[in-house]
Amino acid sequence: MKTFTHLDSDNQPSMVDVSEKAITKRTAIAQSIVVLTDEIMANFQDGDLKTKKGSVIQTAVIAGTMGAKKTSELIPLCHPLGLDSCKFSTEIVGNEVIITCTCSLTAKTGVEMEALTGVSIAALTIYDMCKAFSHDITIKETKLIAKTGGKSDYKL
Amino acid sequence: MKTFTHLDSDNQPSMVDVSEKAITKRTAIAQSIVVLTDEIMANFQDGDLKTKKGSVIQTAVIAGTMGAKKTSELIPLCHPLGLDSCKFSTEIVGNEVIITCTCSLTAKTGVEMEALTGVSIAALTIYDMCKAFSHDITIKETKLIAKTGGKSDYKL
Amino acid sequence: MKTFTHLDSDNQPSMVDVSEKAITKRTAIAQSIVVLTDEIMANFQDGDLKTKKGSVIQTAVIAGTMGAKKTSELIPLCHPLGLDSCKFSTEIVGNEVIITCTCSLTAKTGVEMEALTGVSIAALTIYDMCKAFSHDITIKETKLIAKTGGKSDYKL
Amino acid sequence: MKTFTHLDSDNQPSMVDVSEKAITKRTAIAQSIVVLTDEIMANFQDGDLKTKKGSVIQTAVIAGTMGAKKTSELIPLCHPLGLDSCKFSTEIVGNEVIITCTCSLTAKTGVEMEALTGVSIAALTIYDMCKAFSHDITIKETKLIAKTGGKSDYKL
Amino acid sequence: MKTFTHLDSDNQPSMVDVSEKAITKRTAIAQSIVVLTDEIMANFQDGDLKTKKGSVIQTAVIAGTMGAKKTSELIPLCHPLGLDSCKFSTEIVGNEVIITCTCSLTAKTGVEMEALTGVSIAALTIYDMCKAFSHDITIKETKLIAKTGGKSDYKL
Amino acid sequence: MKTFTHLDSDNQPSMVDVSEKAITKRTAIAQSIVVLTDEIMANFQDGDLKTKKGSVIQTAVIAGTMGAKKTSELIPLCHPLGLDSCKFSTEIVGNEVIITCTCSLTAKTGVEMEALTGVSIAALTIYDMCKAFSHDITIKETKLIAKTGGKSDYKL
Repeated sequence: MKTFTHLDSDNQPSMVDVSEKAITKRTAIAQSIVVLTDEIMANFQDGDLKTKKGSVIQTAVIAGTMGAKKTSELIPLCHPLGLDSCKFSTEIVGNEVIITCTCSLTAKTGVEMEALTGVSIAALTIYDMCKAFSHDITIKETKLIAKTGGKSDYKL
Repeated sequence: MKTFTHLDSDNQPSMVDVSEKAITKRTAIAQSIVVLTDEIMANFQDGDLKTKKGSVIQTAVIAGTMGAKKTSELIPLCHPLGLDSCKFSTEIVGNEVIITCTCSLTAKTGVEMEALTGVSIAALTIYDMCKAFSHDITIKETKLIAKTGGKSDYKL
Repeated sequence: MKTFTHLDSDNQPSMVDVSEKAITKRTAIAQSIVVLTDEIMANFQDGDLKTKKGSVIQTAVIAGTMGAKKTSELIPLCHPLGLDSCKFSTEIVGNEVIITCTCSLTAKTGVEMEALTGVSIAALTIYDMCKAFSHDITIKETKLIAKTGGKSDYKL
Repeated sequence: MKTFTHLDSDNQPSMVDVSEKAITKRTAIAQSIVVLTDEIMANFQDGDLKTKKGSVIQTAVIAGTMGAKKTSELIPLCHPLGLDSCKFSTEIVGNEVIITCTCSLTAKTGVEMEALTGVSIAALTIYDMCKAFSHDITIKETKLIAKTGGKSDYKL
Repeated sequence: MKTFTHLDSDNQPSMVDVSEKAITKRTAIAQSIVVLTDEIMANFQDGDLKTKKGSVIQTAVIAGTMGAKKTSELIPLCHPLGLDSCKFSTEIVGNEVIITCTCSLTAKTGVEMEALTGVSIAALTIYDMCKAFSHDITIKETKLIAKTGGKSDYKL
Repeated sequence: MKTFTHLDSDNQPSMVDVSEKAITKRTAIAQSIVVLTDEIMANFQDGDLKTKKGSVIQTAVIAGTMGAKKTSELIPLCHPLGLDSCKFSTEIVGNEVIITCTCSLTAKTGVEMEALTGVSIAALTIYDMCKAFSHDITIKETKLIAKTGGKSDYKL
């Protein structure tokens, strides 16, 4: 039966005990979408804006990578984990910046929260870099796309 | 004219110089919505679930408060700031947990990113606490609701 | 012969080299006791205070869990370690809140400092949550209760 | 009437709003006592042990200073604050190492938790440096000695 | 008379008490030089290498900015400070990447260590990004170029 | 063919995927040299200066150890790693303090950046401890001395 694994029998928050779990290769892919305004998109695309866009995206990717590494500091009941890999890709479709983060690790527990934290921090960084134009920016649809290697795989 | 204030004349990422800005009271309100599954909602509402829901929300609020304090560590070009106040409220409407964070500070620069980071980390924590049931959870519509005290106010 | 393993031959502080040590399952249990005033206990026990007490304890447990994960950042010569498990229990006896933290990890070195740091941060958090009533609060008897899995076991 | 200032009207943990509080010079003095075993004391006092003791104490003082600076990262509802001063003194009486930390800051809120966190981390560091001899070490009586500059002064 | 201000009368490390110091605008400029190999320079300058070089430099600038913000966490006796500004410029002369960081803040104490930490972390990041080619990389001449606003100005 | 392993095919910064790499014992030795002024050296060597020098060096060693543990937080694309060992030695030759840091770990990737970050933070700490005398201090020649256990060994 499914249950809140992060609550103990007294409903007190509690880290899951993974000491008896198998060490397997775990992967997780998460995605976040930042919706920018027309004005910001125009400035992304104008003149030397290829460079501007590049700098914004690159700053976000670096922040997202560093954010993924900080997951267990940010999410109270996450286990402190390493990461074997943390990759970002970004795509711009219309006014949307689609950020994808893929994490992997050979460990006793999965890296979903690492991938989700990575895209969230990358999305917040894009917000921060563009907010001088407008605060009409929305981070929408942060979600898990797929994960493998745990008790059960997941695919959106 | 508006511009990417976080890029210098060479389009290199660069912290904004706020040394000449006025010290005023700044506030910002941000919101994030986590969409849970029917199964999770049922477990939130069953039997002693009031307590379960309470523990999940409370863990999220604490994580969000600590996350807001970490904003300048996470977002590369954010100024290191204190916070005079950081308040959360949560509301459950249907399958949605609506998280609101209000930050304030008397300073040279605003606290929008602190409020946005706060709700994002709180939302990720709810995800983490509920993911044993399902990964069909989405964090949607993280956005700024209002801000006051800077060059211009904002209200959604 | 026993020695200060954290000092080198010049008495300079120095991390112990554990590269040749066996990887075994390590556990440690630590305890800290916070002595509150009558007034705080009365407010814990009055009216809806069950909830107040619950919120204070829960905040402390979350802080303690996050604190245990930060041990190697706080204690200069501690090895950076993961944690397979970090559980808290709390009991109130008279005016005393007794906090117990149990950590475990399969690693080359023990997790005593993680358990001790966990209870210490939890105890400080209870202090912080209650200090509006009085500063006549004492954190007493932070100590190790038991450990297993290293060169020698320990039991109080 | 006194109340749990860190709980809101729904008993949810919540940072106190200090935005309207006066900026005054705040000081706080906290103390923690570490009780060592006879064997550890003997090794502190033997031969060149003056140096050994010195290294242990010095490592603890540095860890305590760095820990005091991390207070708002560790204690969930503490405001992020600077520090104008953070001084340690240590005294050895019998088997006890008495650690005192004095913090000061001109700010809207006090630095009690900084001083208490400082002595706690220093005490844990002494534990860590001496535990190769024995785990029969107790950190006893961590408490506030005095504070000035807030709504009311305190003196033990 | 000059003295080790970070040692107290017992030669114990101790944060300087700045509570009585004047709040003035402080600036500091630091520089670090990374000497790369011919092979790395050739790969920087080949084909689309402008982009490669750009990505390496940009990653270093972001890391340096984030590193400057972490100064008081890294250097034991540094006061926890904000920053009003933190700017980087980079220049390539022969095989050398010259990194300059300018920090400013209106505060009771200077920001030399912030500027020096910023360039050091940026330099280490360039090392990390290029080390797949060769470890014959040297970080040379990290030093302060100028500072203003404290008891005495400094200019190299 | 050698390449910028930290840039992906679009020249975007990207953590190297080490999931398929062998777990071997890795060591790295790095060195940094701090050049002090005559006046600082004289104060190091005067009267009870042995103790002053000792306190400065010891603070630097502790800061360097803690800095090495923070490497993956500071250098954007470094993998989060543990450390089995992190040792410092220091030597004074003329006006130069020569700091050496040796790190080791059994892992999928090397610890060069840990050793280099360790000596850099130790060097910055010596700067900080001595800068009340003069800012004419230079950190020169931070470099790798040797590494073993990876794809290829390195020796200066």
